[in-house]
Amino acid sequence: MLRRRNLLTTLLIALPWALLLTLWHQYPTTPLLNGTSVLREEGLPSCIRQQQSIRATPKVIQNYVYSRPPPWSDTLPTIFVITPTYTRPVQKAELTRLANTFLHVQNLHWVVVEDSPRRTNLVSNLLEKAGLNFTHLNVETPKSLKLGLSWIPSHTPRGTLQRNLGLHWLRDSFSNTAPPEGVVYFADDDNTYSLELFEEMRYTRRVSVWPVAFVGGLRYESPKVSPAGKVVGWKTVFDPNRPFAIDMAGFAISIKLILEKPQASFKLEGVKGGYQETSLLKDLVTMDGLEPKAANCTKVLVWHTRTERPTLVNEGKRGFTDPRVEV
Amino acid sequence: MLRRRNLLTTLLIALPWALLLTLWHQYPTTPLLNGTSVLREEGLPSCIRQQQSIRATPKVIQNYVYSRPPPWSDTLPTIFVITPTYTRPVQKAELTRLANTFLHVQNLHWVVVEDSPRRTNLVSNLLEKAGLNFTHLNVETPKSLKLGLSWIPSHTPRGTLQRNLGLHWLRDSFSNTAPPEGVVYFADDDNTYSLELFEEMRYTRRVSVWPVAFVGGLRYESPKVSPAGKVVGWKTVFDPNRPFAIDMAGFAISIKLILEKPQASFKLEGVKGGYQETSLLKDLVTMDGLEPKAANCTKVLVWHTRTERPTLVNEGKRGFTDPRVEV
Repeated sequence: MLRRRNLLTTLLIALPWALLLTLWHQYPTTPLLNGTSVLREEGLPSCIRQQQSIRATPKVIQNYVYSRPPPWSDTLPTIFVITPTYTRPVQKAELTRLANTFLHVQNLHWVVVEDSPRRTNLVSNLLEKAGLNFTHLNVETPKSLKLGLSWIPSHTPRGTLQRNLGLHWLRDSFSNTAPPEGVVYFADDDNTYSLELFEEMRYTRRVSVWPVAFVGGLRYESPKVSPAGKVVGWKTVFDPNRPFAIDMAGFAISIKLILEKPQASFKLEGVKGGYQETSLLKDLVTMDGLEPKAANCTKVLVWHTRTERPTLVNEGKRGFTDPRVEV
Repeated sequence: MLRRRNLLTTLLIALPWALLLTLWHQYPTTPLLNGTSVLREEGLPSCIRQQQSIRATPKVIQNYVYSRPPPWSDTLPTIFVITPTYTRPVQKAELTRLANTFLHVQNLHWVVVEDSPRRTNLVSNLLEKAGLNFTHLNVETPKSLKLGLSWIPSHTPRGTLQRNLGLHWLRDSFSNTAPPEGVVYFADDDNTYSLELFEEMRYTRRVSVWPVAFVGGLRYESPKVSPAGKVVGWKTVFDPNRPFAIDMAGFAISIKLILEKPQASFKLEGVKGGYQETSLLKDLVTMDGLEPKAANCTKVLVWHTRTERPTLVNEGKRGFTDPRVEV
């Protein structure tokens, strides 16, 4: 009887202490707020990880939450945007509104290629300040090509050498490392781009296509899509029998395909007007392999807008305005 | 001895149980993640509060963290942007890239005023989808004014009635309620706006001014600022003796001042070319009261760009493209 009572007493004493000891080790020793560190340790984007400092510095909350561009995602394919550009009065304005659009797009890397003998301060400073992921290159189009003085029979569209340098940079960058999932898109600096466009092109398998407004004398040009969702031709008035009757702004190419076909590039010689896009695409894909986007090419998500050259008549010969003020 | 031993036993049993019971009530019954609800209860912005669902739906993380537009702040002044617009081929493109810029600006309310007999589906749908805070109005400019057939001696600049309706809406909205701190800015839909511009104008006391590129036949026009930081004239070639020789895109007005002077508006009659801005500003402020922004008017943050009218020659009389596809 006494033994049994002793056993019971021991149990009654030992059990709760044991429980207490167990709980002691499990109970969080840090304040509840740091519970968010559970998130931090699970590989969430850095912008979320940074929330640890939300309380200490309430004035910068918005900076942490709304970052330009959106935080890089390890799971989303990358969009490499190649933009040829050249010095002219509206260049900074055009690049500024382009940057304002790109700053909304996740995992975008902007490859800006100047048609100039060296990288200009204007573009360098703009890129540094914009906050985008970028690569800044330059290659000058030879005067012979610009002025049509060469032996090349057709006109050389502006931006050809610059786009090719962008492709070269891509191939060079991933010659020794595994390339990321993603696409290449050629975005001239005067066009207008909706934000939806980038999500349409992001998961391109080989080459994706869609309509472009204000080209070929039309409201829009578009790939012709069969009821089965295959591209079967081109809804254009100008030369619809071209192998790829599509504007530069109307397609994106997977990085994988660009690397698989190292010789594919825009051609300088023997390219008739309207065949620039074909000169690249024919080395990469056949019409059969094109992926129609933008609701089977029924939505316009990009516009080939052109900005007027501003009249600067009142500057006079010596210039009226302060040349040190960048415009 | 036995009593003392009994006391000790009771203590050894009771103490841990009591401790356990206390802990039981204090221990969080919800998983650690919900500890972030501590944040939620302290009035932090809703975008942060919404993080409760981060774990359950990892795919929408970015939506919660990177919201367009940035979350509304109760402490920042509001920017009311009044944009007159009219139906034309490039309208959707222009409004799209404008929205892409405005979507970065905190506490921006877009007042879009169509020059049309009714609000169009194109603009309505664009505004609904953009995600901005907006008000959508319309007023048609009478044909007599448009065609110059009226008795009014000077040409009526486009957008006058629309801007006035925007001002009317503002005064009407805050006739019975306390107005928010903030400014009014007239932003035409073809211009290019840097993001810095909006932060320059946000804390305007009465009327703030800055340079505008590509107006008056110059790289830029600018207020002339004295070394003491006062506006003392205008760096323009075209009629620098105007009371306010400044483009529509070159100034912002505090909401308070707009409400204090209910009669101030853009005038339709007797307004010479280049005097549209003066017709409003002379009722609100004197040159002495202007606040120079953009580093004492030495930086260009807004460009009066103009978009070319696209050539649609290949549409023909009946139209080549599908009219159901919105461009």
